[in-house]
Amino acid sequence: MAATDALSRIGLAGLAVMGQNLALNIAEKGFPISVYNRTTSKVDETVDRAEREGQLPLFGKYNPRDFVLSLQKPRSVIILVKAGAPVDQTIAALSAHMEPGDTIIDGGNEWYENTERRIVEANSKGLLYLGMGVSGGEEGARYGPSLMPGGSHEAYLNIKDILEKVAAQVEDGPCVTYIGEGGSGNFVKMVHNGIEYGDMQLISEAYDVLKNAGGLTNSELADIFAEWNRGELESFLIEITADIFQVKDSESGHGELVDKILDKTGMKGTGKWTVQQAAELSIAAPTIAASLDSRYLSGLKDEREAAADVFRSEGLKEESINNVGVVDKKRLIDDVRQALYASKICSYAQGMNLLRAKSLEKGWNLNLGELARIWKGGCIIRAVFLDRIKKAYQRNPALANLLVDPEFAREMVQRQAAWRRVVGLAVQKGISVPGMSASLQYFDTYRRGRLPANLVQAQRDYFGAHTYERIDRPGSYHTEWAKIARGAVV
Amino acid sequence: MAATDALSRIGLAGLAVMGQNLALNIAEKGFPISVYNRTTSKVDETVDRAEREGQLPLFGKYNPRDFVLSLQKPRSVIILVKAGAPVDQTIAALSAHMEPGDTIIDGGNEWYENTERRIVEANSKGLLYLGMGVSGGEEGARYGPSLMPGGSHEAYLNIKDILEKVAAQVEDGPCVTYIGEGGSGNFVKMVHNGIEYGDMQLISEAYDVLKNAGGLTNSELADIFAEWNRGELESFLIEITADIFQVKDSESGHGELVDKILDKTGMKGTGKWTVQQAAELSIAAPTIAASLDSRYLSGLKDEREAAADVFRSEGLKEESINNVGVVDKKRLIDDVRQALYASKICSYAQGMNLLRAKSLEKGWNLNLGELARIWKGGCIIRAVFLDRIKKAYQRNPALANLLVDPEFAREMVQRQAAWRRVVGLAVQKGISVPGMSASLQYFDTYRRGRLPANLVQAQRDYFGAHTYERIDRPGSYHTEWAKIARGAVV
Repeated sequence: MAATDALSRIGLAGLAVMGQNLALNIAEKGFPISVYNRTTSKVDETVDRAEREGQLPLFGKYNPRDFVLSLQKPRSVIILVKAGAPVDQTIAALSAHMEPGDTIIDGGNEWYENTERRIVEANSKGLLYLGMGVSGGEEGARYGPSLMPGGSHEAYLNIKDILEKVAAQVEDGPCVTYIGEGGSGNFVKMVHNGIEYGDMQLISEAYDVLKNAGGLTNSELADIFAEWNRGELESFLIEITADIFQVKDSESGHGELVDKILDKTGMKGTGKWTVQQAAELSIAAPTIAASLDSRYLSGLKDEREAAADVFRSEGLKEESINNVGVVDKKRLIDDVRQALYASKICSYAQGMNLLRAKSLEKGWNLNLGELARIWKGGCIIRAVFLDRIKKAYQRNPALANLLVDPEFAREMVQRQAAWRRVVGLAVQKGISVPGMSASLQYFDTYRRGRLPANLVQAQRDYFGAHTYERIDRPGSYHTEWAKIARGAVV
Repeated sequence: MAATDALSRIGLAGLAVMGQNLALNIAEKGFPISVYNRTTSKVDETVDRAEREGQLPLFGKYNPRDFVLSLQKPRSVIILVKAGAPVDQTIAALSAHMEPGDTIIDGGNEWYENTERRIVEANSKGLLYLGMGVSGGEEGARYGPSLMPGGSHEAYLNIKDILEKVAAQVEDGPCVTYIGEGGSGNFVKMVHNGIEYGDMQLISEAYDVLKNAGGLTNSELADIFAEWNRGELESFLIEITADIFQVKDSESGHGELVDKILDKTGMKGTGKWTVQQAAELSIAAPTIAASLDSRYLSGLKDEREAAADVFRSEGLKEESINNVGVVDKKRLIDDVRQALYASKICSYAQGMNLLRAKSLEKGWNLNLGELARIWKGGCIIRAVFLDRIKKAYQRNPALANLLVDPEFAREMVQRQAAWRRVVGLAVQKGISVPGMSASLQYFDTYRRGRLPANLVQAQRDYFGAHTYERIDRPGSYHTEWAKIARGAVV
């Protein structure tokens, strides 16, 4: 579109693929947008794409001043640059030309405390600030992401109409809501990513068990995941997994590509933060932690290969993956589906409880049902069953844990036998299922009125005089264990 | 002992039980010591104890100036107060009277970065500083703790003779060594505590399985743990566990006290830090994390009881703890012993790898074998098998993981069948064993040359264009998965 003197409704700075796609999405929804990037070739690239993808109202700007001054007041500028120092640099460059009442919206995967620091800095200049989680990858940014804006409510209201058009649309509304104050938008996105780690790990374990205990081929796996995607597991990650198993290896010309991919998983930091925050807030999140650990251990490829050799030479028989005669394939597939579903519920329960704990600490007043709703579309963890999570929290906003919602509780009870069979089989065969197993342990710990923690507490009192409580009377007690035991006749 | 004009060799400020005991220990070893506490009644208490426990050379001081000036130069002052702000306050009060070349030694469970900050502050005044981990509880402080001093090497040399006399003594020397620079002493103590959490959790799971799957009585448990303490599991924590099961409940007059203790476990923060640091340093430490999570979940007593009711009403049959006819008790006991030992090795492997990772990051040059050695006595995790860990690192200081030391590898292989039986049984019976299970999953992940991480990496490339590597050729690849799969005929 030709340059125009009319002011744009919004601006976007930072034109890597995510930024370009989000800008094109906004323009396509009819909101004139100015775009800027320090490396100006990206500006031209974006303008070209806007032209090609339907003469969209998108205007390239080549310096911060022109960019900012091309926007309607109060100005709203989305920045999509690498988290950390680049965000500070971009804010400095842009805010020099902004005026009180204008807003900066950081759309990156930023650590929430950085956002809270920037909110204070922005406010000192009269500027408003939003830290907005954006999920859905490149595709989502272009055609409808899930958006998690937190910070200034006034700033949110300024662009609510844009965000609601740009976000993914599901039957109960657009996948965006005002999350809360401060860095809540970034925090919610962080936990979303932690849950995403969990989902991916659990799916990879299902694959591992089906392949190595069930002997399924890639073609069979493609069919199974496609079938699962028509049931309770229906979700983006299950859908793309079905796709993945179908892709042939064009490099070597034989077999499927998935078998040629190195088993080392990269990561970007949000999973790590989720695990650290869970520990900080006294929330057990073992499934998410197991998925992070699995990424770490996957990275030690050379060490793992060396370890496999060491244990083989010490006489450890590898699970005989062809010796699957004893496994009933059909039942295994059905069991794994149930184990995956039950494990997934535990992982979401952990993520939701982490969100609630942080919300209480920070006074964010997060609406957990509403968060489940905006994850129903656009984002990587989008799934049919998020609607059930939404409903669980609508039924009871004070729900202590997803697991004890009557509907989920019933599902857990129905699936636990299959789940135990799968984890038991994997344990027996030496197929590692850290995620499924962490979920099962979480379930079996949470649902037990009595744990052996009494012994731990006795030990602590024995060596550290940390005292203990009793089950039958109030008060705090200390016992001279050694004195009594050593004097006692056993 | 009567006041004297002779200067003391060392001083100790902070006379709670740990401080009193350590001061008495030092005095008993023949080193004249001055003691000080802000609440002066504690000073009198300590002086009285010194008198009663053998006219020890211990001198009470009632203000910071008298205290500091009563010490030989270069002065060394140990402080044992609550970590955090109280340490800063104590340093401020004492350092006002100290001179360049004098040393402050913080013996608390301090966060290592606080120590590093204080080292800089102390140095700016010409003072030396040590952050010294002290393990062994009250008993250890009095009769021989394990000491982990880190910071100024010069400061260490000033008090080396004292520390070596005061520390627990084992056959290959005193349980103290210079750990390294900076906050390394505190960091090592932190990981020690993380390992301690793991040990306690694993023991409680062994108890749980033996009690609820094996139907063992407290009296039988006391015998079993006492027996275990004569074998490869010989350790302080196993020993005190045997004691604990013998203690009758004097409050109610019937049964054993352990059964009356509320199953809620307290904690002090070092376990949390260990888990957070492991995540930070890309080290999988799932057994330690599981023990932290178990403490968190133990705290939710009311929620757990409510959850037990919910699942019961949804039809979940509690494991029938009396229906143990199918379990061979003798074999179960032997299996649990092996499972506990194998799980423990994994937990130590995690802790040691965390120490190495931090050592590399900080340039501390930690000697892992030497750390295992100083943990052989005095501290809570003291155990015979630490000598085997010491030897493993002596054999190969670059050992990638304890598990692949030839001796430990052999032991793991010998025990894995029993270990799988125990975890399998617990999974089947719904007895939560998060620690044993996390260890087993760690073992089964680490020893596998091929993990299903290839699928995770394919997913990441599918939705985020994160690229992947191949197993058969170099380079970084990206595939248009959706395009290919959706165009493909399955």
